[in-house]
Formats: sequence, structure tokens, C-alpha cells
Amino acid sequence: MVGEFVVRPVGRVESPLTDRAQAPKQGDEGAPDCWLVFEPAMADALRDVRVGAEVLVLTWFDRASRDVLAVHPRDDESRPLTGVFSTRSPDRPNPVGLHRVTVLAVAGVRVQVRDLEALDGTPIVDVKPVLDRDTER
Amino acid sequence: MVGEFVVRPVGRVESPLTDRAQAPKQGDEGAPDCWLVFEPAMADALRDVRVGAEVLVLTWFDRASRDVLAVHPRDDESRPLTGVFSTRSPDRPNPVGLHRVTVLAVAGVRVQVRDLEALDGTPIVDVKPVLDRDTER
Repeated sequence: MVGEFVVRPVGRVESPLTDRAQAPKQGDEGAPDCWLVFEPAMADALRDVRVGAEVLVLTWFDRASRDVLAVHPRDDESRPLTGVFSTRSPDRPNPVGLHRVTVLAVAGVRVQVRDLEALDGTPIVDVKPVLDRDTER
Repeated sequence: MVGEFVVRPVGRVESPLTDRAQAPKQGDEGAPDCWLVFEPAMADALRDVRVGAEVLVLTWFDRASRDVLAVHPRDDESRPLTGVFSTRSPDRPNPVGLHRVTVLAVAGVRVQVRDLEALDGTPIVDVKPVLDRDTER
């Protein structure tokens, strides 16, 4: 048995996307620009995030199903059931989303980004810089 | 105010690294090979993870400080204090680690990987495939 840990969101996504049916499967497949709205207490954590940076945003898919262990990738029934650890399905035991986005604007604790496929209101867990080893770590 | 969410670890890291002082700052800076030991209930989620695959492992840095908002990168006091959202410091409000690793072996719910800089016993939150857009998303 392993313990449990509490995620306290550091902010929320503001997006025109409001339901999963309209959301693209990946951020570079037509996601609208949206805003990351951070808690005021997070200003110091955020202070070095700059316009033009590519960053990784971790979210909590709060409308996902956590008891799903295998899915048809991209909801395509013709594709074989695949263990969720080999897919980016939001339905998974700990529904953390990982999004690589470009920062378009910073206004206080509001950060506008491109290529984020999360629904409006999605909690933000963390932001990390992209570390290049030519690819993300 | 935003709600809270509970992370239920899907496994733990088995590593010869037992304290932060000896851990490398990034996995490709000399991290030893180690094992991801999953909960038996996660077998279906894991079933398509193959030897040779590069995957992203998300961990929970359970020995990190969650009230740290700015750090000297890489513990180098000569570098200016930097907001944690622009660093990979384990000390951050939600201490989720993101590790790109190569799968060396799979034995039931035990998965051996290269380049994981997590300490022994670190809880595993999730595993995701690397999606190439030449870089990680």
C-alpha cells in the first residue's frame, strides 16, 4: 500500500472549450488560445515566466474517469484497447494532463498560451520549463 | 478558491539513490538504472509498455518542500533566485516530477528504466508515452 497526496491547484484554465466532445485530442490540433489564471499567492513562483517561452503545463483533468485502465486510442473503436500508460487519454488513475504550450502574454498572474487543449475551469497543477536535450524531459 | 484532488500512487520507485545530496539534478547526468514497481491493480494500464520505449514518468517528490516559490537553480547560490515554475526544482507547490526514461526490462508489474533521478521509494503518479512533434508535448 502506498500513501495518498493532496494536489492543491495553483490556478485554473480559462478557455472557450467547455466540453470534451469539442476539445481537440492534442493542443496543436486546433486548440484555441486560452489563459492560465493563477492564484495570487503563486506570483513569486511565476515571476520568471516570459512571453515567447515554451513551457510545460500540468493540469488535473477533473472531469475524467479514474477507474479506466485501457482505452481505444483517440476514441477510435477500430484501434485496439491500449493500456492508458501508453496513451494520453485523460481517463487514467491519476488524471494529470501534460501540455507543451507557448506563452503569448503575461499580465500579473494571468498568462495567455497557445496550444492548450484543456477545458474551461481545468485546475492547473504545475508549470515547468522545457529542458532541451533536443526533446522534453 | 479552487478544490483539492487526491493523488493515489500507482507504484513506487526502487532506486539505489536514498538521499537528495547524492541524486543527480537530471536523469541523464548519471542516474542509476532503477525499477518502477507498480501496484498489481495497475497491470492493465501498463500492459502496452514495451522494452526500448521512451516514456514519461510522473512522480510525487514526497520529500520536497511545498512552500518554496523561488530557488537558486541547481542549488547554485551564484545564480539569481528564480520562480520555481521556471525551474525543475523538486521543491514547488505541487511537487510532481517529470522524467523521460527508457524502458530496459519489463517483468510483470516491475519495469526497469534508465535515467530516472528519483529517490528510492518515490511514489509514481502516472506514465505517459512520448508524443513526438520532434519534441515532447
